[in-house]
Amino acid sequence: MAAVDLIVRNIGQLVTLEGPSGPRAGPAQKELAIVRRGAVAAVDGRIVAVGTEGEVTEAIESTPDTLVLDAGGAVVTPGFVDPHTHAVFARTREDEFAMRVEGKSYEEIAEAGGGIRSSVRSLRAASADDLLTRGRATLDRMLTHGTTTAEVKSGYGLSLEAELKTLRVIDTLARTHDVDVVPTFLGAHEFPDEWRDDRDGYVVHVADEMIPAVAGEGLAKFCDVFCEEGVFTFEQSRRILLAGVDAGLAPKIHADELHASGGAELAAMVGAVSADHLVCVSDDGIVKLAEAGVVAVLLPGTTLSLGKTEFARARAMIEAGVPVALATDCNPGSSMTESMQIIVSLASMMLRMTPAEAITAATVNAAAAVGLDGEIGTLAPGKLCDLVIWEVDDHRAIPYHYGVNLATSVVKRGRVVRGHPDGRKTPGPAPAH
Amino acid sequence: MAAVDLIVRNIGQLVTLEGPSGPRAGPAQKELAIVRRGAVAAVDGRIVAVGTEGEVTEAIESTPDTLVLDAGGAVVTPGFVDPHTHAVFARTREDEFAMRVEGKSYEEIAEAGGGIRSSVRSLRAASADDLLTRGRATLDRMLTHGTTTAEVKSGYGLSLEAELKTLRVIDTLARTHDVDVVPTFLGAHEFPDEWRDDRDGYVVHVADEMIPAVAGEGLAKFCDVFCEEGVFTFEQSRRILLAGVDAGLAPKIHADELHASGGAELAAMVGAVSADHLVCVSDDGIVKLAEAGVVAVLLPGTTLSLGKTEFARARAMIEAGVPVALATDCNPGSSMTESMQIIVSLASMMLRMTPAEAITAATVNAAAAVGLDGEIGTLAPGKLCDLVIWEVDDHRAIPYHYGVNLATSVVKRGRVVRGHPDGRKTPGPAPAH
Repeated sequence: MAAVDLIVRNIGQLVTLEGPSGPRAGPAQKELAIVRRGAVAAVDGRIVAVGTEGEVTEAIESTPDTLVLDAGGAVVTPGFVDPHTHAVFARTREDEFAMRVEGKSYEEIAEAGGGIRSSVRSLRAASADDLLTRGRATLDRMLTHGTTTAEVKSGYGLSLEAELKTLRVIDTLARTHDVDVVPTFLGAHEFPDEWRDDRDGYVVHVADEMIPAVAGEGLAKFCDVFCEEGVFTFEQSRRILLAGVDAGLAPKIHADELHASGGAELAAMVGAVSADHLVCVSDDGIVKLAEAGVVAVLLPGTTLSLGKTEFARARAMIEAGVPVALATDCNPGSSMTESMQIIVSLASMMLRMTPAEAITAATVNAAAAVGLDGEIGTLAPGKLCDLVIWEVDDHRAIPYHYGVNLATSVVKRGRVVRGHPDGRKTPGPAPAH
Repeated sequence: MAAVDLIVRNIGQLVTLEGPSGPRAGPAQKELAIVRRGAVAAVDGRIVAVGTEGEVTEAIESTPDTLVLDAGGAVVTPGFVDPHTHAVFARTREDEFAMRVEGKSYEEIAEAGGGIRSSVRSLRAASADDLLTRGRATLDRMLTHGTTTAEVKSGYGLSLEAELKTLRVIDTLARTHDVDVVPTFLGAHEFPDEWRDDRDGYVVHVADEMIPAVAGEGLAKFCDVFCEEGVFTFEQSRRILLAGVDAGLAPKIHADELHASGGAELAAMVGAVSADHLVCVSDDGIVKLAEAGVVAVLLPGTTLSLGKTEFARARAMIEAGVPVALATDCNPGSSMTESMQIIVSLASMMLRMTPAEAITAATVNAAAAVGLDGEIGTLAPGKLCDLVIWEVDDHRAIPYHYGVNLATSVVKRGRVVRGHPDGRKTPGPAPAH
């Protein structure tokens, strides 16, 4: 019997996602391993017991210092993991959003000074303090909506100095914010103006100068590249990802977003942890992802925000055995949201992922997409005690009830960081459910 | 100089929507009449001054009792009006949502006991107190998201007794909740089981018994009907709407949602205040709506929730001169949301309505769709002081920044009902903007 710091009890549906380690593919993607009338107990930020109330009560010892959270019969899931964001930026771009709605093309917007290069200009001009303040507000909102871990990419700097500035801000956020932050280097997000006439030169610069500098400072876990027509070619992308691997940065890739550019195939070839976007992935690309065990990170909020109705073929991927994860793509150009909840809703509505598949995609598979499925993404003894109490009594209501925040309490590393920190109030389901 | 109860000052963009009375059509739908560095003042719940800070300060007199709200440079708009909801129901239907995602057809779900008739069974079995508690929670969430007036329909009763029970609950909500509630009788929402073999008999029952009873108790302002293949025919719908007109209930209509059923034409013929859904409206139907000045209420959240990608042709309607409004369709079967914000986002993303058009559609045109454009929907002297302070400094960010709640303070009839009631805190834009 261990004396515990926290017990969450009276859980109507405890979505543990217990199962074999690693990402879940095929039929396993809908196995939530739900415990009825469940409880979770934690010591020092880690889970020590999960199960029915009876099982947990028997396994642990509570003291007067133990915080007891009564979930009031509500649903509890692991904290959501957002495995693809560009959450550090200097300026929102609602002006471009409005231009796009009025039918302006990407090229016209770029000519008017917009696009990623607009974010590059503003980020280069911004102070680290300003980026930190904005980044903190973005992470605050993620946490409020139930995200306890988020990947954050650089890629609005595109010079050694500005990329390092961004990654140091991300590092400060990682060390100081309640949300756990996973840093990714994305120097190959676009070609900066000063290199547009020497694209191969920029690729060499990224591979031979930026990556060693970033890895030398220990500022990134992953190296990502935007492999796309008009941006980085298959060959340029491969070169950069392999340079990352040499420096100890695991590969991730923006693949097949606007055209079938061989991104999925490249992901499989270099052993990428994830291939992201995949709206235009080929059938062969899907097979390659499945064979290589690459996690597909789908971003339906981006498709929606861009006003498109052709979404990524999640069903084909799931049927082929690709583990599918979801992310917000939180960024000022094509998906301005911090909420994984609306993404989970879009996954069920537009990608035809069942509520169970979508929840797996936002938890254990998203954790695998950032290489953290050993630490987070399921509720099992030994894992971090990251969980959300939802204002619903059926997990299917999480995608169903859309456009509002259903997270009533958020627990990160065993601490109540949103909701009712005294554990006295009962945050259970609203009367509407 | 009048002594005022409330001043909202330091407004970066004060979206007044000042202009000619009535709904806004064509190019006028994007005229927001924005005042920079604006202020609003109210006495007894009504606006007495609107304009620049200088103009307002000159026109009014503040006393020590005046509540001064500092908007911190943020955007202020009229409170959102939600002109189409089924917000009083007994049970959510996430089970059917999951079945639909898995590819079950409407018919299969109905056979399994689902659909509107499932809501009818649960509403008939529910107590008025239970309906009231759930309805209050739904309105609470609407208010939190910036909706200050909502239409609410009956239509899950489908018997005289159960329809009256619903409308009395709606009446209690209207008298007791901060959200102003506009009641609509929708006895012709579906055919109840006991009348399925005598559909014309049910139409007579609605027209000759229900409508007089509802009107006699003063329980509805509008009479609505679901005119659709397999539900109420054109002729049945006409009969019911005209019976409503005879009893003093203005007509509204669920028109052309799944098929072009002549609903728009019928709306024009009977002088309906609004025609709603219109996903399948014909070109001729659009012309008829424009000629008759019927407000088109579009419900993109319903299309999304049903997993469809064919949205209502908002651009064709706006170009034809139809005033377009937006609504949540808040209901447990096909659109479980209380947030007009996600609807405004979907309108820009999927209906290609500019941010300005979408905001007009959620305010003055939505007010017109419930016959209240003389009272609400714009910020002008004499109107109710219903307004929202948004956590953005540019109105275009309201549709752009999606899936989260950007309303920081909500003022209803001159009272701060959400946000910072003491007027000391500054709810201005988040650092992320």
